[in-house]
Amino acid sequence: MEEERKKESEFRIKIDRESDSYDEFVEEIKNLVALEDSKKLKEMLDGAHPADIVTLFRDLEREEELYLFRVLPKEDQAYSLVKMEEETLESFLEELTVDEISNTLNHIETDETTYLLSYLPSAKRELVLANLSKADSFEIRSQLGFREYSAGRLMSKDFATVSISENVRKGIINVRKKAKEIEIYQIYVTDEAGVLEGFIPLKDLFLTPINTKIAKITNFSVFAFHYDVDQEEVANTFKKYDLVSAAVIDDLGRIIGRITVDDVLEIVEEEASEDILLMAGVSEDERLSTPILQSVKRRIAWLNVNLLTAFVSSTVVAFFEDTISQIVVLATLMPIVAGLGGNAGTQSVTVVIRNIATGDLSFSNWWEAVRKEFTIGVLNGLALGTVTGLMIFFVKGNIVLGLVVGTAMFVNMIVASLTGSLVPIILKAMRVDPAIASSIFVTATTDVCGFFFFLGLATVFAKYLI
Amino acid sequence: MEEERKKESEFRIKIDRESDSYDEFVEEIKNLVALEDSKKLKEMLDGAHPADIVTLFRDLEREEELYLFRVLPKEDQAYSLVKMEEETLESFLEELTVDEISNTLNHIETDETTYLLSYLPSAKRELVLANLSKADSFEIRSQLGFREYSAGRLMSKDFATVSISENVRKGIINVRKKAKEIEIYQIYVTDEAGVLEGFIPLKDLFLTPINTKIAKITNFSVFAFHYDVDQEEVANTFKKYDLVSAAVIDDLGRIIGRITVDDVLEIVEEEASEDILLMAGVSEDERLSTPILQSVKRRIAWLNVNLLTAFVSSTVVAFFEDTISQIVVLATLMPIVAGLGGNAGTQSVTVVIRNIATGDLSFSNWWEAVRKEFTIGVLNGLALGTVTGLMIFFVKGNIVLGLVVGTAMFVNMIVASLTGSLVPIILKAMRVDPAIASSIFVTATTDVCGFFFFLGLATVFAKYLI
Repeated sequence: MEEERKKESEFRIKIDRESDSYDEFVEEIKNLVALEDSKKLKEMLDGAHPADIVTLFRDLEREEELYLFRVLPKEDQAYSLVKMEEETLESFLEELTVDEISNTLNHIETDETTYLLSYLPSAKRELVLANLSKADSFEIRSQLGFREYSAGRLMSKDFATVSISENVRKGIINVRKKAKEIEIYQIYVTDEAGVLEGFIPLKDLFLTPINTKIAKITNFSVFAFHYDVDQEEVANTFKKYDLVSAAVIDDLGRIIGRITVDDVLEIVEEEASEDILLMAGVSEDERLSTPILQSVKRRIAWLNVNLLTAFVSSTVVAFFEDTISQIVVLATLMPIVAGLGGNAGTQSVTVVIRNIATGDLSFSNWWEAVRKEFTIGVLNGLALGTVTGLMIFFVKGNIVLGLVVGTAMFVNMIVASLTGSLVPIILKAMRVDPAIASSIFVTATTDVCGFFFFLGLATVFAKYLI
Repeated sequence: MEEERKKESEFRIKIDRESDSYDEFVEEIKNLVALEDSKKLKEMLDGAHPADIVTLFRDLEREEELYLFRVLPKEDQAYSLVKMEEETLESFLEELTVDEISNTLNHIETDETTYLLSYLPSAKRELVLANLSKADSFEIRSQLGFREYSAGRLMSKDFATVSISENVRKGIINVRKKAKEIEIYQIYVTDEAGVLEGFIPLKDLFLTPINTKIAKITNFSVFAFHYDVDQEEVANTFKKYDLVSAAVIDDLGRIIGRITVDDVLEIVEEEASEDILLMAGVSEDERLSTPILQSVKRRIAWLNVNLLTAFVSSTVVAFFEDTISQIVVLATLMPIVAGLGGNAGTQSVTVVIRNIATGDLSFSNWWEAVRKEFTIGVLNGLALGTVTGLMIFFVKGNIVLGLVVGTAMFVNMIVASLTGSLVPIILKAMRVDPAIASSIFVTATTDVCGFFFFLGLATVFAKYLI
């Protein structure tokens, strides 16, 4: 049953890494590449989706990839480049000639072309652009001028428009002109100067008598982004208003592109993945296929920062060596206070970072978030401080020891909630990605404070603890 | 400049929580509600997006929300229910009468209706269903029968089909029938029995002479999901193949619904948010608006589990109290070994969990991931073990102490990478969400092992350390 469902869900997929025959399939491909049997290869890959061909690339050597790539139809070549992982893409493009690259570019939308060209060194990029039609290269050049991660970079320049003073007939003609190359869901309506006025869903256009004035069926509730708006804001707006597509406008309000929800899908995924990976101190691009040394480099950098903060908190402990040597049980209990503070702090950090990313938390309501986390910190602190204090009292039979542990934990929980909520908000205000540095800063603080409160209190009440 | 861009990006948005006049706006709404001035309220909210009205609800009391809700046009009522946060929705629906609920449902698609009804207690749900047309209630009942988080729950039943033996004229008629209610981007092509054969993009349908046979312009590369496929798999397939929409089929391959990319957008966001929140031990639904006691309850539950694991590792430390009392410096160094292991383990866990979520890691290549993490663990361990060992040697002037710290750290890094990669994979195989339990299990292991290796080695070589 499981098997059958699997198959149905991957209807029409010719290459499936999960299937039992996949290994044989790869073997056969490798053999055919070795024999340079391009005809047989073409047959085997006919109808395969470029996204699956890219998956197949992962199991081939670079030389084999290149041979296979060159066997593909131009259109599939273009899409397989688009679907390639970013770190593979750069080195792969190095191996291709200027002609090979420019020949594939006619088969994809301008946003994808711009994306691919941004991975070329500028000399090679110029050569590729010189190979394209004047109109195309002008468009792409202007799009490369937009800021990375902006709406301008994200948009496609392939869209259909009609002037508001025209009629439906003219709209259909304009769609017909564009429709061969691209998927169109609506036509944008502008005034004579190109300033965006509204849109018409494609079905309304086609189902209305052709002499109807465009103005009569225009929907004026159109969403538009300035080209320099950040892609995260674009994504959040799409989510909030359930948009399928939106226009991109220039400083004068003229439409210069469109963004569709499938472009946004990737961003939402990327931004969320980025947060989760950055919080753990892993490169935002790390994937299973990232070369090991590259993974190690980034991870070690972060662990080294952790090492430094660990030495700092170790210094705090060293400060109390005398107390510990008299009351060794403190050494067994101190990691509990510090550790729980770290966990509570991470909870606050995570909630606040997620709320910032989804746009729920902004500068207008940051105070709400801090107040809420503080209250949670107090409540958590009361509950866990009491539980831990009582446990220590029962196990160790010393009420003062229980009080010291409980109090230190209570205070540290409040520290955790305050730093956990304030640090990401402050970093955001400083325009630093809060996911990068928040958690390390918060756990360092809870370690230092946890050790300090606990060992400090223990030193003060030392005579009751021995 | 910032200001201007902001405005442009929120074209046509009437209620903006970030704007300076928002507080005044809320005050005025509150006053009008108090005066029961429904006419003025309607005017003020005319043209406002339901998503923004829901935002406004957050700043109102429940009684005010209800008054405002009842002032809205039926269509906006329906959408504001759909956009409401899940925890508010349930209690809000309790306040509405059966008639009020059923009257709104005609204005939304079946997947949204099903979603709303799943929040009603079953008695009330039956009453609402009894109020709907027979056809509608039958459809919704059947959709409620699908497993939660399955393609069947996600799909909309509003789609247009045409038989492959018909011609374009018939296709256009079928679209026209549906087009009033819904947004259509393509028409699905079936055989006589309703079995899915392919699809035609809407523009191709309209731009082809009306006597053309459907079979001639059908695109047979159609993606379809069995109704019981998990929504995460749906989302990953949409991402991989850049889909805009896909069909949902029954056991016999007949089309029973369609899923569009905007439905998937929410899932991608949800699944990524879920992972990040669950890893930190926060409820997957926690938002800024979650009531404090609810947040505390879930967070404390997780901190309590942490408390237990902290006690376990504290027991390991207690086991070495004699050694510590002789060599107090060990107490200052032991958190370093344990802490860095925890951080390295969290890195492995995060990368593996993300790769599982995006579908890059599955049962066919889990071994690759474990091997990679292991290698990273060895390299990290060598580098950080050496650095830390040398630092301790220089600071404390004892080479054996440096060796003990370095070796313990090396071994603990390997433990971290192995548990960090194996635990989420094993949990996944056991059908437990790896995000829930992995990180706590891994850091507990690195704490216990870190303390044990370090203090154990120190005990063995105690005479060189004093």
